[in-house]
Amino acid sequence: MSPARFDILGIGNAIVDVVASADDGFVATHGMTKGAMQLISAEQAGALYTAMPPGQETSGGSAANTCAVAAGLGARVAFLGKVADDDLGRAFRHDITETGVHYPTEPLLGAAPTARCLILVTPDAQRTMNTYLGACVGFDVSDLDEAAIRDSSIIYLEGYLFDPPQAQQAFQRAAAIAHEAGRLVALSLSDAFCVGRHRAAFLALIQDHVDILFANEAEICSLYEEQDFEAAALRARDDVELAALTRGAAGSTILRGAERVDIAAAPATLVDTTGAGDAYAAGFLAGYVEGRDLEAAGRLGSAAAAAAIGQFGARPKTDLRALARTGG
Amino acid sequence: MSPARFDILGIGNAIVDVVASADDGFVATHGMTKGAMQLISAEQAGALYTAMPPGQETSGGSAANTCAVAAGLGARVAFLGKVADDDLGRAFRHDITETGVHYPTEPLLGAAPTARCLILVTPDAQRTMNTYLGACVGFDVSDLDEAAIRDSSIIYLEGYLFDPPQAQQAFQRAAAIAHEAGRLVALSLSDAFCVGRHRAAFLALIQDHVDILFANEAEICSLYEEQDFEAAALRARDDVELAALTRGAAGSTILRGAERVDIAAAPATLVDTTGAGDAYAAGFLAGYVEGRDLEAAGRLGSAAAAAAIGQFGARPKTDLRALARTGG
Repeated sequence: MSPARFDILGIGNAIVDVVASADDGFVATHGMTKGAMQLISAEQAGALYTAMPPGQETSGGSAANTCAVAAGLGARVAFLGKVADDDLGRAFRHDITETGVHYPTEPLLGAAPTARCLILVTPDAQRTMNTYLGACVGFDVSDLDEAAIRDSSIIYLEGYLFDPPQAQQAFQRAAAIAHEAGRLVALSLSDAFCVGRHRAAFLALIQDHVDILFANEAEICSLYEEQDFEAAALRARDDVELAALTRGAAGSTILRGAERVDIAAAPATLVDTTGAGDAYAAGFLAGYVEGRDLEAAGRLGSAAAAAAIGQFGARPKTDLRALARTGG
Repeated sequence: MSPARFDILGIGNAIVDVVASADDGFVATHGMTKGAMQLISAEQAGALYTAMPPGQETSGGSAANTCAVAAGLGARVAFLGKVADDDLGRAFRHDITETGVHYPTEPLLGAAPTARCLILVTPDAQRTMNTYLGACVGFDVSDLDEAAIRDSSIIYLEGYLFDPPQAQQAFQRAAAIAHEAGRLVALSLSDAFCVGRHRAAFLALIQDHVDILFANEAEICSLYEEQDFEAAALRARDDVELAALTRGAAGSTILRGAERVDIAAAPATLVDTTGAGDAYAAGFLAGYVEGRDLEAAGRLGSAAAAAAIGQFGARPKTDLRALARTGG
């Protein structure tokens, strides 16, 4: 196996977040489940945008956030995901490129606009997400940069990409290419409801192709239809080489065969939890590919998550290089 | 004179800000004057955007910021300014409308894109601005909503609008309409370099048409070509009914005939000075049209400016209604 050009190659939905502060009443009145992500149509997105408070546009997307943060921490990173050739698509491309991420995917032309996620942040710092997938639906196997995939130590797949149907096929193919090249395949479950929509497909991919699994408590319980976190965690341990399971303020649990490491959450000022899980995965993977042990990689994950939680928006504006040096 | 439908009607450039953190080296290397606003071409905007760090898009524009903050403080507000029919234009329209501002200007079709201001915020919280005027150049007398102007207690003109040539003519006409209807005309000088570019036109407008003048120390000194603030302030007092002059951390000085009120700056955490002057004008005008005295109006201006300075971006996300109630 040749040395890799990239440490991490992420594949996910390329999304611009529109982040606004709202009260619990707004979230309830508009039929959202607080803390969850729901898919909405172009029409619903238009209506919700008209109703929501003034927003702030920042590049988002779960795997894309992970890639941006990992690059900020010093990892060599590539990202595949589909935008359109419009203002938001150009902003997405600019922002991820500027963090140092290689981003070769061609924009979708003459079809749907760049995806947007309308995010309402409530006073408890919880985020509720409404995603119009737009151009992301155009992502397919032809967008797989096979050379880049073969040349990455770990490919990192975002569970949300199970929603656009062609992307599911691209996932399977990307995982196969990576494994043929002797690389590792990581997956983030993204959202408990997304897992519920695609449970069988998730389980098949995990059992056949996934080496490293990221999930939070609700997601891992949804995947295995277990009430109890410990029961679900044991099932994950049997299915994958390495599972990194986040538990909010309770920290995270990392399982690798007989090894188990519990990591405390890093202290954080609660402002906006958007991107906390994405940043955790970034910190863990950036540490892991560097050869840090599970505990040190987990601590860097927790520190990156704390940086994301302490500010408005998903990608921390703090000095991530310094974080990588101190180890969190 | 009939009771007014709006307390304030602002006319200004309709701009989306792209705000990024940068160090002093970046600002110097790219030939910018720290703290100033410079106009850039579409080509320069493209090149600078490519070079600058990841950004965050938020609605901006000087008078538009003033309008958004004044509406947040409870004033009845309208705004006139030109965007294009693109993603950024739609975001601008959404954000200003959602603050409760009436925004009747039709978008510019098939021509330049929505204006953007590339803002670099240095570690000292100072902002350096690079504006591509785009669709703003399309603003002309046909965009003047005469009924709305006649129906506003105060029209508020942004000095930056002296840059697009047709807008200057629109200014003169708007001021004439307002005065015919017995309304007040306010002007913000916006930027010392902008004043330098258009000094004679500024002086003519001020002497013929302006009742209330907003300026900071550098701007008022540039207007009257005086070295000394006090000398420039006396000149302003002779030219307009009411001058509200801001002095950064030293607070503000309000002059009306023989009256002089000095207001201390409200305590603020320095994060980003973008929009501080705009917010001051908003607080002052919102208090003034409500009938507060000069000192109370000035205090509300200082409090709104402090809210703008304490966060990233020009329009405070804090509870402005509460600020209006407590009076700053």
